[in-house]
Amino acid sequence: MKKTIIVFSGDLDRAMAAFIIANGAAAMGDDVTMFFTFWGLNILRKPEKVKVKKGFLQAMFGWMMPRGAGKLGLSKMNFGGMGASMMKSVMKQKNVATLPELIATAKEQEIKMIACTMSMDVMGITEEEMIDGLEFAGVATYLGEADEANVNLFI
Amino acid sequence: MKKTIIVFSGDLDRAMAAFIIANGAAAMGDDVTMFFTFWGLNILRKPEKVKVKKGFLQAMFGWMMPRGAGKLGLSKMNFGGMGASMMKSVMKQKNVATLPELIATAKEQEIKMIACTMSMDVMGITEEEMIDGLEFAGVATYLGEADEANVNLFI
Amino acid sequence: MKKTIIVFSGDLDRAMAAFIIANGAAAMGDDVTMFFTFWGLNILRKPEKVKVKKGFLQAMFGWMMPRGAGKLGLSKMNFGGMGASMMKSVMKQKNVATLPELIATAKEQEIKMIACTMSMDVMGITEEEMIDGLEFAGVATYLGEADEANVNLFI
Repeated sequence: MKKTIIVFSGDLDRAMAAFIIANGAAAMGDDVTMFFTFWGLNILRKPEKVKVKKGFLQAMFGWMMPRGAGKLGLSKMNFGGMGASMMKSVMKQKNVATLPELIATAKEQEIKMIACTMSMDVMGITEEEMIDGLEFAGVATYLGEADEANVNLFI
Repeated sequence: MKKTIIVFSGDLDRAMAAFIIANGAAAMGDDVTMFFTFWGLNILRKPEKVKVKKGFLQAMFGWMMPRGAGKLGLSKMNFGGMGASMMKSVMKQKNVATLPELIATAKEQEIKMIACTMSMDVMGITEEEMIDGLEFAGVATYLGEADEANVNLFI
Repeated sequence: MKKTIIVFSGDLDRAMAAFIIANGAAAMGDDVTMFFTFWGLNILRKPEKVKVKKGFLQAMFGWMMPRGAGKLGLSKMNFGGMGASMMKSVMKQKNVATLPELIATAKEQEIKMIACTMSMDVMGITEEEMIDGLEFAGVATYLGEADEANVNLFI
C-alpha cells in the first residue's frame, strides 16, 4: 500500500526520521511519496551556491537557510551546530546511514520526491538550486497521492 | 473522503500549511475537520482584548500568547517577529493568500473548525475570546471524525 | 480500529497531546500502538540515574536530555522550565491528569508502547534506563502496525 509523508521540517533529526520511515516502507514493497514543503525544501537544496536572479527578500531567505542535507541543525540541543555534529559522530560510530546516504537510498528505491512549488516560490528557491531527480507540484498533487495511501504523516 | 487535521502548533508557517491543505482538500470536494488544540488555539483568538474574569496563571498565559492569526511568529528564523514580517511581505508580492484570508476561505468552504475544550480550560481561553463560527468539543469528537476519514494529520 | 502514534517529540505539551489521544482512543475500544523515537524516548526514561557503561558522546547525550516525564519542558514559552511549571500548576487546579498519570492510564489500558531500538542505540539509552512495560523494536514493526491502523499520527 502507498505511504505519503509531508516533510515540512528542515531539522536534521526530523528529516532523518522521515527518510528512515520512507526507506523502510519502500524496502517492504510500498509505494512512497514524500512531499517537501517550507523548511523541508532545504533538505533537497544543492550544497553549492547556484547563480540565480532573485528579489531582495528571497535572496535573504536563501542566504539564511541551510543549503542541503549536510548543513541542517537539530530541532533540540543544536547549540549552534555542535549538537548536530555530535549526533553525526555518534551515527558514524554506530554505522547508521547519514542523511545524504538515506536520500540516495530513497532515490534508488524510486521513492517519489515532490518539492512544493508554492513554497519554492515564496522562499525564492528555484529548480536549479535543488538536487536532481525531484518532481515539482502543489497541494492538489499531494492530496491525490494521499487519497491512494493508507498511511499519511506530517513531519 | 473526509480529512482531519489536528492543529497543535500556533506557528504562522505551520498554521498556513494546515489551512492550505485543508482548503485544497475542501476545494476537491472533501469534508474537512480541523481540530485546534494547545498553541493552535491562538490562531483562532480574536485580535482585540476581550474582558473575561480569569485566574492569575490563566491571565498570564492569555497575556503571553499571541492574539490571533495576525500575531503569530515563524517556527524557525522568527527573530522577534522580523522573520514573520519578511514572510508576509514575500507572500504579498507573490499574491499568496494570507492566513486570515485562508481562514475566511475555510469558513466559506464549510470546513468544520473545532476548538479543544480541555486545552481552552487549561490555557484559560474562553469562547468569547475566539472568532465566530467554531465548534467546541473534546478528543472523543476528534476521534469520531478521524474514524470516518482517510487522511489524518497532526501539525 | 487500530491507531498508531509516532512520538518523536520529547516536549511536555506534545507528549501530553499524544497520550490524551491514545488514551481517548483506547477508552473507545481501539487498539493503540505508540512508537517512541528520538527525543520521545526521554518521556519513558526512569527518573533515577541508572549505572550503565557508555561511550563519551552517549554519556553526554544522556546527561543533557531530560530523565523522564517529570522533567520535560514545553515546546514554546518554556522559559527555562517556568512555563512547564506554570502549565503543571494550572493542570492541577483544573484536575487534568498529569503526564505520569496519563502514562499509567496508557499501561492500564494496555496501549502498546514501543521504544525505537535504533534511536536508543544512537542516543545511548539502554533498556535498563527505561520504565517497565515497554517493547523494543524498529521501524519495520512500526510499519506493520500502521498498515493495520486507520489513524496514524506523527507527533
